Amino acid sequence: MEQSLLNSFSEKYKELLEQQLRTSVNEMNAPSIIKEAMLYSLEAGGKRIRPLLLFATVDAFGEQAEKGLMTAAAVEMIHTYSLIHDDLPSMDNDDLRRGRPTNHKVYGDAFAILAGDALLTYGFQLITDSKNVDAETKIRLIRELAIAAGAEGMVGGQVADMNGENQVLSLEELEYIHNHKTGKLLAFCAVAGAILSGASDEVIEKFRAFALHLGLAFQIRDDILDLEGQEEKLGKPVGSDEHNHKSTYPALLTMDGAKHTLEKEIEAAKAMLKATGVNTRLLEELTDLVATRDH
Amino acid sequence: MEQSLLNSFSEKYKELLEQQLRTSVNEMNAPSIIKEAMLYSLEAGGKRIRPLLLFATVDAFGEQAEKGLMTAAAVEMIHTYSLIHDDLPSMDNDDLRRGRPTNHKVYGDAFAILAGDALLTYGFQLITDSKNVDAETKIRLIRELAIAAGAEGMVGGQVADMNGENQVLSLEELEYIHNHKTGKLLAFCAVAGAILSGASDEVIEKFRAFALHLGLAFQIRDDILDLEGQEEKLGKPVGSDEHNHKSTYPALLTMDGAKHTLEKEIEAAKAMLKATGVNTRLLEELTDLVATRDH
Repeated sequence: MEQSLLNSFSEKYKELLEQQLRTSVNEMNAPSIIKEAMLYSLEAGGKRIRPLLLFATVDAFGEQAEKGLMTAAAVEMIHTYSLIHDDLPSMDNDDLRRGRPTNHKVYGDAFAILAGDALLTYGFQLITDSKNVDAETKIRLIRELAIAAGAEGMVGGQVADMNGENQVLSLEELEYIHNHKTGKLLAFCAVAGAILSGASDEVIEKFRAFALHLGLAFQIRDDILDLEGQEEKLGKPVGSDEHNHKSTYPALLTMDGAKHTLEKEIEAAKAMLKATGVNTRLLEELTDLVATRDH
Repeated sequence: MEQSLLNSFSEKYKELLEQQLRTSVNEMNAPSIIKEAMLYSLEAGGKRIRPLLLFATVDAFGEQAEKGLMTAAAVEMIHTYSLIHDDLPSMDNDDLRRGRPTNHKVYGDAFAILAGDALLTYGFQLITDSKNVDAETKIRLIRELAIAAGAEGMVGGQVADMNGENQVLSLEELEYIHNHKTGKLLAFCAVAGAILSGASDEVIEKFRAFALHLGLAFQIRDDILDLEGQEEKLGKPVGSDEHNHKSTYPALLTMDGAKHTLEKEIEAAKAMLKATGVNTRLLEELTDLVATRDH
């Protein structure tokens, strides 16, 4: 019964989010090719875990999750821009994402770069359009998002990841990469949900810590799945990290060690949730989902 | 004597701006290679015409131009990101800019893309850091900047420019490209200066119209210089537009027609300045400078 609560919540807000993404891009007064390239990657699906994390955090405070809609759309646009740029030939050089050709394979490198630039820029604009959110709160959200997405966050993580290619990394270096490349944007989602709900700074920081643990758990699970997962569920060959000489948790800690660390991160995430003092049932479910997901 | 007024104003605020750019990047907690790549292009010099336009607009209202510092730094970062991405091999494929190797020639394509992404992101963050500016005003600035820089503005202009390559464009198409690729970000600078000074919507729109005329004048002068300028002052070969099959004003209107249109744009820009009703002496000088510059 618990599981179905998150399911129906996810379905409702995923739908709302995807509608907002489409509407926002469609109403732009811009060359059609760039709108098409933006939508191609926005509509590639995916778990929409960042928006859901944000919505579920707002819900935890008993607020209407809709309040987070524009910020959730902003995060998804910025996440999508990062995938488009990361897939480029000069970066990770990926031809496929979620079983479809990557953006630059369809629109060419130049328009893929520009579609990414446009999504990043539009993300910030969307937050300014939030309904029922005061200007002080919007500024706080924009500032947090810029830090999470820029050189001190996601971009810095991608830089460290590229610098570390074909090297054996220490556990500390691996955590730096994950915390920056994916952790900080995930943390932004929980932080934004708490800010939008008027939480105190102390509670906001608990949500940040929760989401950073969740982010690491997500990455460790990713590494485990890459070795133990089923190819058809993953949508990519099993063992591709090893093939690509990527540092992983199982490689550094052994498979048992990685599973143990995953458990510890999940426990720490849940302890932080408990400490927030609000109704985090959906977020606990989301955390369990991350720990046990098979794709 | 008039000329020296703009000169001393320019010198003072160029210095202040460049100091802010350096400080902002240096204080980031990010991998050193990305900070270095960001600074490499930020410190490549240039006329800093966008920041100066913003500072001079604030000055026109009798306000302290310093009030515009963070917004001016934001615009310069976003302008710089656009140059880095436009120079990439998959875009304009330029090896040199202002006589120095382009960013990707020094740091490689991947870090050049990431340095651009980081500058764009940081631009929005900087506005949130403005001193003595209320949250409502910051939100308005961020919204205007995102529209000017994104798919409805600069990115859209670059898309149209790439779509129009090797084609004979109509005057209307050429104006669309210039208005979007450079005009809207210039217009943002004048608009931002007016917003920061508490101008009425009516006056703000006069500043926008002024800067759009100034932007077209700037481009027409560029096209004329490409044919009549002196190579050593331009820092690129004379006639390179023709060589690159670029549509230009002289090609569409004849050289005399282009010069006539330049005059008309300058007149229109000055008429708009007069209509604002504030002390636009510095901006008039700046406009004359655009009309007569030799590089």
